[in-house]
Amino acid sequence: MRIQVINPNTTASMTAKIAAAARLVASPGTEIFATQPDEGPVSIEGYFDEALSVPGILEEIARGEGQEIAGHVIACFDDTGLDAARCFASAPVVGIGEAAYHMASLVAGRFTVVTTLARSIPALEHNLVRYGLASRCGGVRAAEVPVLALEDPHSSARDRVSGEIDRAIRDDRAEAIVLGCAGMADLARSLSAEHGLPVIEGVSAAVRLIEDLSVMGLSTSRIGGWASPRRKPLSGRYAVFSRAS
Amino acid sequence: MRIQVINPNTTASMTAKIAAAARLVASPGTEIFATQPDEGPVSIEGYFDEALSVPGILEEIARGEGQEIAGHVIACFDDTGLDAARCFASAPVVGIGEAAYHMASLVAGRFTVVTTLARSIPALEHNLVRYGLASRCGGVRAAEVPVLALEDPHSSARDRVSGEIDRAIRDDRAEAIVLGCAGMADLARSLSAEHGLPVIEGVSAAVRLIEDLSVMGLSTSRIGGWASPRRKPLSGRYAVFSRAS
Amino acid sequence: MRIQVINPNTTASMTAKIAAAARLVASPGTEIFATQPDEGPVSIEGYFDEALSVPGILEEIARGEGQEIAGHVIACFDDTGLDAARCFASAPVVGIGEAAYHMASLVAGRFTVVTTLARSIPALEHNLVRYGLASRCGGVRAAEVPVLALEDPHSSARDRVSGEIDRAIRDDRAEAIVLGCAGMADLARSLSAEHGLPVIEGVSAAVRLIEDLSVMGLSTSRIGGWASPRRKPLSGRYAVFSRAS
Amino acid sequence: MRIQVINPNTTASMTAKIAAAARLVASPGTEIFATQPDEGPVSIEGYFDEALSVPGILEEIARGEGQEIAGHVIACFDDTGLDAARCFASAPVVGIGEAAYHMASLVAGRFTVVTTLARSIPALEHNLVRYGLASRCGGVRAAEVPVLALEDPHSSARDRVSGEIDRAIRDDRAEAIVLGCAGMADLARSLSAEHGLPVIEGVSAAVRLIEDLSVMGLSTSRIGGWASPRRKPLSGRYAVFSRAS
Amino acid sequence: MRIQVINPNTTASMTAKIAAAARLVASPGTEIFATQPDEGPVSIEGYFDEALSVPGILEEIARGEGQEIAGHVIACFDDTGLDAARCFASAPVVGIGEAAYHMASLVAGRFTVVTTLARSIPALEHNLVRYGLASRCGGVRAAEVPVLALEDPHSSARDRVSGEIDRAIRDDRAEAIVLGCAGMADLARSLSAEHGLPVIEGVSAAVRLIEDLSVMGLSTSRIGGWASPRRKPLSGRYAVFSRAS
Amino acid sequence: MRIQVINPNTTASMTAKIAAAARLVASPGTEIFATQPDEGPVSIEGYFDEALSVPGILEEIARGEGQEIAGHVIACFDDTGLDAARCFASAPVVGIGEAAYHMASLVAGRFTVVTTLARSIPALEHNLVRYGLASRCGGVRAAEVPVLALEDPHSSARDRVSGEIDRAIRDDRAEAIVLGCAGMADLARSLSAEHGLPVIEGVSAAVRLIEDLSVMGLSTSRIGGWASPRRKPLSGRYAVFSRAS
Repeated sequence: MRIQVINPNTTASMTAKIAAAARLVASPGTEIFATQPDEGPVSIEGYFDEALSVPGILEEIARGEGQEIAGHVIACFDDTGLDAARCFASAPVVGIGEAAYHMASLVAGRFTVVTTLARSIPALEHNLVRYGLASRCGGVRAAEVPVLALEDPHSSARDRVSGEIDRAIRDDRAEAIVLGCAGMADLARSLSAEHGLPVIEGVSAAVRLIEDLSVMGLSTSRIGGWASPRRKPLSGRYAVFSRAS
Repeated sequence: MRIQVINPNTTASMTAKIAAAARLVASPGTEIFATQPDEGPVSIEGYFDEALSVPGILEEIARGEGQEIAGHVIACFDDTGLDAARCFASAPVVGIGEAAYHMASLVAGRFTVVTTLARSIPALEHNLVRYGLASRCGGVRAAEVPVLALEDPHSSARDRVSGEIDRAIRDDRAEAIVLGCAGMADLARSLSAEHGLPVIEGVSAAVRLIEDLSVMGLSTSRIGGWASPRRKPLSGRYAVFSRAS
Repeated sequence: MRIQVINPNTTASMTAKIAAAARLVASPGTEIFATQPDEGPVSIEGYFDEALSVPGILEEIARGEGQEIAGHVIACFDDTGLDAARCFASAPVVGIGEAAYHMASLVAGRFTVVTTLARSIPALEHNLVRYGLASRCGGVRAAEVPVLALEDPHSSARDRVSGEIDRAIRDDRAEAIVLGCAGMADLARSLSAEHGLPVIEGVSAAVRLIEDLSVMGLSTSRIGGWASPRRKPLSGRYAVFSRAS
Repeated sequence: MRIQVINPNTTASMTAKIAAAARLVASPGTEIFATQPDEGPVSIEGYFDEALSVPGILEEIARGEGQEIAGHVIACFDDTGLDAARCFASAPVVGIGEAAYHMASLVAGRFTVVTTLARSIPALEHNLVRYGLASRCGGVRAAEVPVLALEDPHSSARDRVSGEIDRAIRDDRAEAIVLGCAGMADLARSLSAEHGLPVIEGVSAAVRLIEDLSVMGLSTSRIGGWASPRRKPLSGRYAVFSRAS
Repeated sequence: MRIQVINPNTTASMTAKIAAAARLVASPGTEIFATQPDEGPVSIEGYFDEALSVPGILEEIARGEGQEIAGHVIACFDDTGLDAARCFASAPVVGIGEAAYHMASLVAGRFTVVTTLARSIPALEHNLVRYGLASRCGGVRAAEVPVLALEDPHSSARDRVSGEIDRAIRDDRAEAIVLGCAGMADLARSLSAEHGLPVIEGVSAAVRLIEDLSVMGLSTSRIGGWASPRRKPLSGRYAVFSRAS
Repeated sequence: MRIQVINPNTTASMTAKIAAAARLVASPGTEIFATQPDEGPVSIEGYFDEALSVPGILEEIARGEGQEIAGHVIACFDDTGLDAARCFASAPVVGIGEAAYHMASLVAGRFTVVTTLARSIPALEHNLVRYGLASRCGGVRAAEVPVLALEDPHSSARDRVSGEIDRAIRDDRAEAIVLGCAGMADLARSLSAEHGLPVIEGVSAAVRLIEDLSVMGLSTSRIGGWASPRRKPLSGRYAVFSRAS
């Protein structure tokens, strides 16, 4: 089985870290195909960056579709472009945010999300409401760590995330922690050991869920909001999507 | 005062209709500046079309900003790209969906939305939840009218919309109707007269609300999700946004 | 266009302040007609005062109706008597509480209300739930300032309100502030400048929204809870309402 | 123990019917003291009638207070004036709407309300949300019976109510019925026998709950929204309330 | 009238305390029949203890049914086994948790629950959501007092509960307190006097509500989730329930 | 890896069917260990049956724990005893109801549940609210098929389920179907093919999720409601649980 893991930003070191997290949990026989867009923001920090990353995500899906893919993972915790991707892709698509929330719900009655910057909190809160899991969430906390600081081994990023976990246990009655950025994928196991509660990161969760859907024979419903796009004339930079529209 | 009204699709006849609805309610002295993107879908019918229209919307905002604009209206009922536009624009931005819902709340305890295609219902429902006004909504109904059929005077579009209004009054306990597509802007007054209840279309509502914000001296908060984008290297098709990032 | 702005309490200095706020944003050609009941409480601080102010509000509406009014503003932040007024009045009625919440929703994802006394918090929370906008509200805070202290230039009222705004930004993740009393109408602009975020007061918002409804040709739906009152025999102190009943 | 049961409208035959329902469940030793205002609407059908009945309710409470009362029942299903009455009265106050909802919750997972006119539905729905019990309610249905038709033995009122109960069982998955008007108090037992499910009317429920509170030594909290009114100058028609204000 | 009050744990001193609380409010002529299971946990502290107490509760109900019982009270604040008991019992069943919440709602807009151990908080929160009264609850606090410490006059249990009440008033805007354990039944009146707000314990509330239902002629609806169990072969330890199944 | 799949009722043919569904999706190297209690109801149809099945479920977990189990699946769609099982078991526990809901959320914006008897609907609705996924559910429908009719190849069970799916698509805007009984596990693929939308059954979903948790190294949080039971004296039929208590 081939799974495409799309890093929606253009930072190659993050793609590598994400791919490593994916491979750690992939079943024997599953091939992880990690990609990133050619153009777009170097990191996704808020709605504006999200918007600029979506065309690139869709292009990566178009690129991946030629390769007998079992499913696509969108490896930005905001689940950027997830709806459009589900409409467009033939195979299932799972976002790492939703994946982490669903998995966390199986091991904890209540989880807190620790993300990078405060400006991302509203988008995550809206996702939680939309997915239906807001009532399971004790809070979304920002460690005030820029995404790319997570790529810098000399930054205080891990310490700041760890400090927010302490506060979540004390103030939010958190029973588990969800790490709110793909760039934190390598921190989950050590933070779990340090704090004595489940720490979930979404890349591994999403890869496993794609495998699950594939084995169970489930794919995106075409009734409702994720119906295949209606065929429309597209030119210029969007001609690449003319298959779908 | 100049207000930019952005039609997010590339169909010029819709831009003209939207501009006319805007001018009908604009105060003396307000100039309506109606625009549309150069590239993108000819109509917005679902999440995939939405995603492809967002870069064009942001480009129109960049284009408008040089012109002493009091505010921007996004004239797609899905409020496509509203969050990104609010981050990016210096002036206030109002979507026609949210504008219609807020106005409807002042004249009706409960309103029903009549939109074009069923595939758009989930996006509108999510917006209603996010805005907080879902509890005021008795239902989102699709007339199963493609957007461009609204541009065709020989289509059955108006009849189908009118039929859904009948059903909304009977089955949803609707006290008012919100028309769920910018292309229906010219139908509001006659449908209101025909059915004997308020019928709200969002273009006029959004234009008025931009005027209100301007007169009241209110602009988008930079605390939280609508903070100005962080400065980032952008190249290729996104170089146009380098001002902001 | 004539707009009647009703101060539901009997304190003339508040009526004057409210009228000034209304005139500041009224369009050229709009006349503000500010009134107050002859009898009732000198300030509205909780449910009991609210109840005693409603007959006076309805009497003011009856008085205003003879004067080609475009709409009525109820200038108490509890939106006292709004439902009864909407049933009774021919023209649209807007409360300053709801007006402020709707406007705040256009410039902030999340707002905090700063009101006078803690006893008023539950009424405001119920309104927020009813209007549907509770999910946009980060909290309702009381500055513990009696309403009439706002009329006294030597009181600490402004300082206390300003202190709550600091706490709202720090503890509620407030992106904007809604001032929860008509008597604070003169403080909005200076508090906004001081704290660097939008501060919305409801009198100006309600006046603008009445203008909007009027220009858009919208009036209260007569289907549902705001249907015109059924005709009933009324005598004694209620004979003044015999037109309606 | 003396319990004051206040019929908020001026129709004496309803007061008598309400008193009879109250006496049916009152404990030995409990005296039912049934009253009605001197002025106000003959029946309460919507927000406007509600507003005009509140001063009369408060006057009745003032009148009742001299009589060693254990508590006051407000016998209008809209729980008209309940908040103001709780602030003003020394003894507990229970509305028949809330009383019926609480009792129904103990014998049914889900209940439907059958009320008189559709115009009353929104007020009842708001109460249900406010009380927190909306999630227990399968629907609020109007039998389209004016309140005073319930006083006319020749009207079709009972048949219409019974027809709505049939629809509630079939379409709402109702497990119990709450009768949504004090004027239906005499119908509960026969409708329960006829339809084979619990039918709850609020007058008896409220009388019992006042007895419960009295025996348990519980009275209205003075922290929060039901704090005693602040002392204020009152004149004219409101001088009667000068004790409280 | 006979009311069976079932202490779901096997600690006889708690049964005695519960019986005393019940008798304090029972009407003249009501006989309190207090029982406890032969086997099961000595106290109920979390879901596992709850599960092991349910068969014993049902056995007590079977035992009580031969005795012309007007209703059964389940005297564990988690309302352990309430649904199964309602299905099985012929007479009404009321849990002390739900009883306390309903009564609290009549004297306070907002109440805080003070329970024993933090592990019980989620179960109480789920009940509040299910009953519909979560919106009335300002918080569920644990005094970190094991249940049996409440039986020890030398423990610090009362002080710890009292401390949480202080925090609830200050931090939760609590207007009343609900005591979250049957073992606290003897503390309500003195804590109310000490803190100056209503303090509700559920045993007395449930006994009164059973009396109310009985006098009103109301019993559990057999439509929906509380339908009588379908007849099934049962053997071994469950043969005692063969009447019902 | 060994996964214990517990059929909570005593019907061996259902255990066999459940085991087959589990093996269909288990990874190579995963051993399915399917068990059922010795005593208890032959099928679980409502709260009373649920209550009687819980001790048996916990005994099966105790029995399974000696066998290096990666996790336990509770194969009743009501997720009977899930909380108690999570407290008690060392390994993760997943219910088939929650598993199906989470998986359905990845392929459909909105799903309808088709279960056996109407009496089970409230329990499923409460689970959906508790899990947080009620907002994703378009309805819970009963096919009015007793559980054991699913074991009878000559019954009309499949036809009735299929008929409800038709109604769900037409009336609920269902985008996917969740089969609401373990006994329907063999119907999912053919019903999906017949109706052209995803049909999810929970046994396979739960088995996959246990595998996922195991590979990801996640286990039940011991903070909060699922803390390990406190040690208590247990005798008689509960002595088997003395390890935990």
